[in-house]
Amino acid sequence: MKRHVFIISDGTGITAESLGNSLLTQFEGIDFEKQSIPYVDSIEKAEKVAEQIDNVFSKTQIKPLVFVTLVNPEISTRISETNACIFDLFSTFLAPLEKELNAKSSYRIGRTHGVSDFQTYNQRIDALNYTLGHDDGIALGGYNKADIIFIGVSRSGKTPSCLYMALQFGVFAANYPLTDDDLSYTELPESLRPYKDKLFGLSIDLERLQAIRTERKPNSRYASRSQCQQEISEVEVLFKKEKIPFINATRYSIEEIATRIMAAAKIKRRF
Amino acid sequence: MKRHVFIISDGTGITAESLGNSLLTQFEGIDFEKQSIPYVDSIEKAEKVAEQIDNVFSKTQIKPLVFVTLVNPEISTRISETNACIFDLFSTFLAPLEKELNAKSSYRIGRTHGVSDFQTYNQRIDALNYTLGHDDGIALGGYNKADIIFIGVSRSGKTPSCLYMALQFGVFAANYPLTDDDLSYTELPESLRPYKDKLFGLSIDLERLQAIRTERKPNSRYASRSQCQQEISEVEVLFKKEKIPFINATRYSIEEIATRIMAAAKIKRRF
Repeated sequence: MKRHVFIISDGTGITAESLGNSLLTQFEGIDFEKQSIPYVDSIEKAEKVAEQIDNVFSKTQIKPLVFVTLVNPEISTRISETNACIFDLFSTFLAPLEKELNAKSSYRIGRTHGVSDFQTYNQRIDALNYTLGHDDGIALGGYNKADIIFIGVSRSGKTPSCLYMALQFGVFAANYPLTDDDLSYTELPESLRPYKDKLFGLSIDLERLQAIRTERKPNSRYASRSQCQQEISEVEVLFKKEKIPFINATRYSIEEIATRIMAAAKIKRRF
Repeated sequence: MKRHVFIISDGTGITAESLGNSLLTQFEGIDFEKQSIPYVDSIEKAEKVAEQIDNVFSKTQIKPLVFVTLVNPEISTRISETNACIFDLFSTFLAPLEKELNAKSSYRIGRTHGVSDFQTYNQRIDALNYTLGHDDGIALGGYNKADIIFIGVSRSGKTPSCLYMALQFGVFAANYPLTDDDLSYTELPESLRPYKDKLFGLSIDLERLQAIRTERKPNSRYASRSQCQQEISEVEVLFKKEKIPFINATRYSIEEIATRIMAAAKIKRRF
């Protein structure tokens, strides 16, 4: 069974996609064909989208699911007139919120991901520059400014998690790869010792690490089962011995790794 | 006026934050004190959070606003028993969705940002590696694999937009900074010519560019008004002459730059 889904927003569509996907992932047996249409911010654009929706209905005789975050009532009314099953994520909650706050919504478009005030922008860029400049063990000098320093074996997910933290929360996230050399001593590298309270470990299952490394360097010693196995056991021994908090990131997405570690290490977002 | 807000989720909380923030930004005169509590995935954790909420009510005698995405009915019931104004972002739509789809929700936790299937993970990492390896004009050789190549003056927002596209949509996004040398010829650098159909320009207002550059190199020629002015006019002349699509990114967030350009250039997300 296939079901057409439209995600329609007057802004980026990020909010609508996020909640729409959350809801749809709860229905496993159904094949959803999703289409995201952002920046529907005029009645002309709404007309075109409404036609698209009605076309799908004409062809399939099944109502498409339509998730919308539209601030302008005229635009959302036009969409609601289509032959579709509408989930209005915004107005559903806006009326009760107005009542509870005893205040009127400003009905201004694109405020969620569109408020690009200079200070927030700068904080994001600063965090991103810091993270890019302290990726993969480069520039050991700047760890005093780090909010967190990820450590783990090569390809355990450090770089993407750091970049996500920097972009999403303005966190200064460095990372340092524990290599063969570091691990053979079974103690922390000298350069990390002074920052022990900022360290957070990433571990990973053997099969996953091997698969990731094989994608990148097939048939190498680096991707071999024995090498991966050895590095993982050594790194976990090190984490435990040095009492460094760590998580096994195998079954987590980048978003989960970042938010779980933020919570566990009590790291404050900068905006 | 100040109002306490709790954003509670059994997963990352990204969805709840996104919609909660969307709604709250519509009420401008009110000072919201927000607290995000992710991974509330047991009744014990729910108890603790419920206490926190009730404590705020006891102290302020004003009901906190509580935005929740909780899959487990037992947990969400416990939260709904607090002295708060609850916005249940999930169950509000789940019942009508079940009816429309004639299917039962699986009520499984953390599926939105937690589904870390190997293929998607790999696509994200590949895109991220590509983007990091083709940032700021390095590695000109790989442009044939790019989905898009951002061009613009230094500090016009190319790197964060590229990284966001890579992380969020798996897009292979390269970027090339147009420097003084490139601009003085008023034509495209030789290395970009073969990829003209992949180019997208970023421009920026004079005041904003000057402010960003001044943050980084105060009192430099690079940050001077005349230098910024000259680069911006030259780059816009170039975009127009070469018919390269471009946007002025001054008033846009990173999310907006990325999603607007994806829409304008019709770039397909890879997952």
